[in-house]
Amino acid sequence: MTDTSPRATASESDVRAAAGRARDAAAELAPLSSASKDAALHAMADALDAASDAVLAANELDVAAGRADDLPDGLLDRLRLDTTRIAAMADGLRDVARLDDPVGEVVRGYDRPNGLQIRQVRVPFGVIAMIYEARPNVTVDAAGLALKSGNAALLRGSASAQHSNTVLVDVLAGAAEKAGLPRDAVQAVPGTDRASVGHLLRARGLVDLVIPRGGAGLIRHVVENATVPVIETGVGNVHVYVDAAADLDMALRIVLNAKTSRVGVCNSAENLLVHRDVADEFVPRAVAALHDAGVTIHGDETFAALDGVLAAEDDDWEREYLSLDIAARVVDDIDDAIAHIRRWSSGHTEAIVTRNLAAARRFTARVDSAAVMVNASTRFTDGAEFGFGAEIGISTQKMHARGPMGLTELTSTKWIVTGDGQLR
Amino acid sequence: MTDTSPRATASESDVRAAAGRARDAAAELAPLSSASKDAALHAMADALDAASDAVLAANELDVAAGRADDLPDGLLDRLRLDTTRIAAMADGLRDVARLDDPVGEVVRGYDRPNGLQIRQVRVPFGVIAMIYEARPNVTVDAAGLALKSGNAALLRGSASAQHSNTVLVDVLAGAAEKAGLPRDAVQAVPGTDRASVGHLLRARGLVDLVIPRGGAGLIRHVVENATVPVIETGVGNVHVYVDAAADLDMALRIVLNAKTSRVGVCNSAENLLVHRDVADEFVPRAVAALHDAGVTIHGDETFAALDGVLAAEDDDWEREYLSLDIAARVVDDIDDAIAHIRRWSSGHTEAIVTRNLAAARRFTARVDSAAVMVNASTRFTDGAEFGFGAEIGISTQKMHARGPMGLTELTSTKWIVTGDGQLR
Repeated sequence: MTDTSPRATASESDVRAAAGRARDAAAELAPLSSASKDAALHAMADALDAASDAVLAANELDVAAGRADDLPDGLLDRLRLDTTRIAAMADGLRDVARLDDPVGEVVRGYDRPNGLQIRQVRVPFGVIAMIYEARPNVTVDAAGLALKSGNAALLRGSASAQHSNTVLVDVLAGAAEKAGLPRDAVQAVPGTDRASVGHLLRARGLVDLVIPRGGAGLIRHVVENATVPVIETGVGNVHVYVDAAADLDMALRIVLNAKTSRVGVCNSAENLLVHRDVADEFVPRAVAALHDAGVTIHGDETFAALDGVLAAEDDDWEREYLSLDIAARVVDDIDDAIAHIRRWSSGHTEAIVTRNLAAARRFTARVDSAAVMVNASTRFTDGAEFGFGAEIGISTQKMHARGPMGLTELTSTKWIVTGDGQLR
Repeated sequence: MTDTSPRATASESDVRAAAGRARDAAAELAPLSSASKDAALHAMADALDAASDAVLAANELDVAAGRADDLPDGLLDRLRLDTTRIAAMADGLRDVARLDDPVGEVVRGYDRPNGLQIRQVRVPFGVIAMIYEARPNVTVDAAGLALKSGNAALLRGSASAQHSNTVLVDVLAGAAEKAGLPRDAVQAVPGTDRASVGHLLRARGLVDLVIPRGGAGLIRHVVENATVPVIETGVGNVHVYVDAAADLDMALRIVLNAKTSRVGVCNSAENLLVHRDVADEFVPRAVAALHDAGVTIHGDETFAALDGVLAAEDDDWEREYLSLDIAARVVDDIDDAIAHIRRWSSGHTEAIVTRNLAAARRFTARVDSAAVMVNASTRFTDGAEFGFGAEIGISTQKMHARGPMGLTELTSTKWIVTGDGQLR
């Protein structure tokens, strides 16, 4: 069987019309009570359970097309749904319903000398567009998180999952409508061609936020082409620095955990930096342990002097391997480590292992990344591990949201000022 | 005397080199104590006082060139400095030194069940670029606010103020350096041509934030061409809605204050909406009072039936007059007012005048603007009026900052996670 579905084109006016409907839906969603939104989330979960067979049938078309297109096994596995995965997506919606609603929180509030009451109140963004790759479960996650935070969702998955995503969006939108919400609260972006993404990225005044989730190429494309606001997510060139004052047993455990507990995720370590004073003891131990775990080491001259270590090339310092590879070098001191990180890091997560308080203080003050760990694995940069209950991505930019993004990060604020006739 | 200074060009590598120096300076600024930054601000203020003659001489060149270029009197006045204005700029720096330093604030902090201590801490953005028009005092304001919040400033004023701005930046950077800070903490963007702005807007990885301050054309140019993060500021198509339950005397005072207390600012009213039930009484009173104040009214059929009221054209509803003009119409009910605002507003500020609590609640919940006033003049959307002590602009976007932006809005956050060997 071959993929018989061509890329569907959508005109700029098609895309803008969908975004306009999303904007109208957002106006209805913003003032909804948490109870109404939670009821809709449960209705969507139940509808998803009930539609399991239809979702599986659509997914089979995607998997067959992917196989015909010679998609790698890893991608095929991420694309494939089964009844367990569908039930998990539905349960995910029920979990989101249980989270606290960020909308309505008074972020700041005070009275002015002239009697004006000033309140900064958390409100939905409005229309949030998500552009993502491969996994159909992102469709359900994103719709649920957007809805809980009072936003209309415009969803654009990859062409390889289009049959699955079409059915999923249809099920979710239908359930939302039955629950009394606007059907357009959850929509797929029209078209599956690249041009339609461009129209979306330039829909100023209609789309309040775009979040790309995927590889570095997708994210760069979105950032470079969007005129609507974007939150960059996820690229992690993550460092572990073993300080002169490190507990070396702990350092070894953290390096192994950060590199090998899960490969291919953005919070896994890609670089090891070792203080010169402990290099003689630590480098051979680290090399042995990493080799035992199947890790290929791309090292500086100290590391590369040991058996089985490859000599690092310049581009090893900036690569996000997402594989059982790690770049490793010896640094002269903590400032050398900080300078290396400032030069090469993607600003996601870095860790220091040390018993020295001044070193911890210096590292956390001077390393400019979304998360800085002291004596902990870099793998903890994660919405669930931070206690957010849900995560829409990990922001590596400094504007609006930085680090794991939960429901709060899907909101904006507005100022409500109440007086009794104040003039200026 | 004519302007003999041609637009100076700057290559992409010139601009990126300046941004790179700013990034290095930012790394030194981030961990500075408030005391160090405040001492530098005082040194900059003293240096500005001491350099008054040099600043005035440079400013005379700009004013003469502006006159030769037939700049309108209003622009010439905004461009012109005198000893009082220079002293006020220096005092502005001393005022900023007295404000609370936002850096280091723990925004959220909690411990996880596994013992990890999680702290979200306020940190500087890094490198903030400001692009602004006409007034040289923005150079000093922006440098002071950026420095207090730990950021390096890349400043790009208008070509018409280039002599003044060059001397001001030189004085500020020199004083910062003498106070022990990196000289590149305050820099002018190289070049005065439009292409150099383009290089700045695409300096990804070097510039963390761009804030345009100026007319709608400048802001649109920045948003449409930037690949670095932008905060949009300032366009205000501002509405006052007089509800059926309004105190009509209060409504009249608010409308007059919002329209006439200062013309040409973004928080002044440009539109008046009147509930049908009070139109018979309120419309003639409003027209008479506005006419007495010299305001030209562009009205719907109800308004235009009165002497001296012009018939509104379609584009009157979306215009930011910035002059003694106001568009005015009668609406059927509060939802009609909200729908009108959703359609035409720029999302800056809207006000409702009402004695009815349900109406106030509905209006504040459903109007999606940076500030929503109840029984107060729209002129209160302002950093000083909100008690911020200083303002870098008023954001009309929803991402990161919305409404008046003070020092807090010039910061990001990072997560500092401290453990004792936690693994995942």
